[in-house]
Amino acid sequence: MKKILTLATGLLLAATAAFGQELANFQRQAPVVSPEVKNDSVTFRLNANYATVVNLQTNFTQGQIPMKKGPNGIWSVQLPLPEPEIYTYNFVVDGVSVNDPVNYMVQRDGTRYLNMLFVPGERSKNYYESNQRGTVSYVWYDSKILGINRRVTVYTPYGYEKNKNKKYPVLYLLHGAGGDEEAWSSMGRTAQILDNLIEQGKAVPMIVVMPNGNPNQQAAGTMGLPTSQINFRDPSMANAYVRSLCEEIVPFIESNYRVIAKPASRAIAGLSMGGGHTIAASQLYPSLFDYICPLSMGAAPTDESRAQLRALKKDGYKLYFLACGDADFLFDRAKQLDQTLTEEGLEHTFFVSKNGHEWRNWRLYLNTFAPLLFK
Amino acid sequence: MKKILTLATGLLLAATAAFGQELANFQRQAPVVSPEVKNDSVTFRLNANYATVVNLQTNFTQGQIPMKKGPNGIWSVQLPLPEPEIYTYNFVVDGVSVNDPVNYMVQRDGTRYLNMLFVPGERSKNYYESNQRGTVSYVWYDSKILGINRRVTVYTPYGYEKNKNKKYPVLYLLHGAGGDEEAWSSMGRTAQILDNLIEQGKAVPMIVVMPNGNPNQQAAGTMGLPTSQINFRDPSMANAYVRSLCEEIVPFIESNYRVIAKPASRAIAGLSMGGGHTIAASQLYPSLFDYICPLSMGAAPTDESRAQLRALKKDGYKLYFLACGDADFLFDRAKQLDQTLTEEGLEHTFFVSKNGHEWRNWRLYLNTFAPLLFK
Repeated sequence: MKKILTLATGLLLAATAAFGQELANFQRQAPVVSPEVKNDSVTFRLNANYATVVNLQTNFTQGQIPMKKGPNGIWSVQLPLPEPEIYTYNFVVDGVSVNDPVNYMVQRDGTRYLNMLFVPGERSKNYYESNQRGTVSYVWYDSKILGINRRVTVYTPYGYEKNKNKKYPVLYLLHGAGGDEEAWSSMGRTAQILDNLIEQGKAVPMIVVMPNGNPNQQAAGTMGLPTSQINFRDPSMANAYVRSLCEEIVPFIESNYRVIAKPASRAIAGLSMGGGHTIAASQLYPSLFDYICPLSMGAAPTDESRAQLRALKKDGYKLYFLACGDADFLFDRAKQLDQTLTEEGLEHTFFVSKNGHEWRNWRLYLNTFAPLLFK
Repeated sequence: MKKILTLATGLLLAATAAFGQELANFQRQAPVVSPEVKNDSVTFRLNANYATVVNLQTNFTQGQIPMKKGPNGIWSVQLPLPEPEIYTYNFVVDGVSVNDPVNYMVQRDGTRYLNMLFVPGERSKNYYESNQRGTVSYVWYDSKILGINRRVTVYTPYGYEKNKNKKYPVLYLLHGAGGDEEAWSSMGRTAQILDNLIEQGKAVPMIVVMPNGNPNQQAAGTMGLPTSQINFRDPSMANAYVRSLCEEIVPFIESNYRVIAKPASRAIAGLSMGGGHTIAASQLYPSLFDYICPLSMGAAPTDESRAQLRALKKDGYKLYFLACGDADFLFDRAKQLDQTLTEEGLEHTFFVSKNGHEWRNWRLYLNTFAPLLFK
């Protein structure tokens, strides 16, 4: 069995060295290293001999940063290394946004593709792959409420396939405006964070369900599927997505996966618009979730919401974890919700972080509240 | 339950209209439409007021095509619409490759991100989403042979989760050099093709397993995982990936999924380097697969391969489907294998298409041979 199949080997090595899968698309890259992390600095480089102006933009700096043209037409700029995290960047070549051609770690934020810069350290260590890795699946459910077939991302923890009799609790994890069912698994590093927390014994093994929160979408826009033409201003469509989540997605998951179908084994969390969905779901379906985590969102109190919160309190829950950055444009809203929860006597955590309405906070929040669930 | 949660709604609509998920990344796009398919033409446009030269490159045209600057700094070029298919393109702005910022249908070929152009028609109709859609999962298996934890893409057909007692046949589908475990599911449109064929009753419901064929990789380079430092020139590592496929991945799938674990329910197919893996697996493990489909690959005969083919013939199989484009740089190799199969008396199909070593052929081949499997 260990004999070499010589007929194919030489040819394959030649093909590997010379071609991509499609010959026509083959192009040799100049030997540029970017980004290069060294000691306390990071250097970005771009081979652009014919460009007039090349700038860098990142989510850890302000505005566009000029790059300087060096020998061989390679533009570069060196910046102080930011604190451990995952950052995004891209170049601007003569006014046009360009991804770094030698860094193919790319994430999509809505309609924009951005290069990633990993800075390792304590804060970001759970954002890397652990040793034991769960499965990420893209599944479809039929929504009668929304009239379309819709894509959902499902994380099942390491061992799910093997442990055929074990049942798991479920976290429903919701994205923000501009996002879709891929947002939490890509930018949010959900699989990596859960894998690490579970492997470290800090979180219990759980399933994480990440639906698409745009009620007119079948799936992320990258899939090119038509959007539905439902008029969501029609009163009959009020809260249509939250209804689909609670009345369709939850039952779909509970009939297709090995799930503990009880409130004490259901959590809901969401960022920004998804925080609004979390608040709405927890108040419209007070018996469904025992763990409620709105992130970077809040709410001004109304008589109706106060009544709903009192009903939620009466019904009971195990955790209400509200989180927001102190530089978030919704921080005042979050403080209003914190105050209303206090006034209505709902036990809760108000987790306030640095920074604003951004993924470094949402990853931090997931890494913080996931260990508190289902215990 | 239909009452509107007014506290959140207004705020959310405002957030949806004004922001992406990350405020800092928000940028308004100019209202450019690209690509625009109209009657028999397609127009590509890019807003690049400060660029000196803007070109277009595609995989259905040769070389770079100059674009012309129009009013408001929008560059454009109109081309005759190519025949129905999925094509790729990008812009070149002052010498730098740029993705089309208003078309976020993007696919990655190895290290390169390319925009997609869909041209609808009979030939491409199975590349769109069908009504009943299977699940695409990213799972990990531990390879003792390769010493790493490795990512595998698994397609399970519509109904797999629901039909808890049904067992399925499995197609192992292998990518080429430069590709990885995401190649077939993204560029190859595997899920869409299988969904359509199954829904039309042309193919039997099957599981499709798409491993990573680069033996030093844990996963696609986009995941940023370190590669292993094994010396694959060491004789003990000969055919290490094919051994891991046949001795580790096949058993992993058969113990974790509801699978008919018989040769008559196992198929193997692969393109280019994956075609080489297919040939190697079928000859080193003649009893494992009853359906063998090397694509855009071939082999010059050797005494050893002739002996292996005779052993395969003796062992028996149900389908040997060899496919190649008549403009493929490996077409002569494919013809050699065709001739050797004939000389050794192995019944087979030699499916010759137009065009070369490219995805429009590999999608066509999958769409052609999948209906022949497991019948």
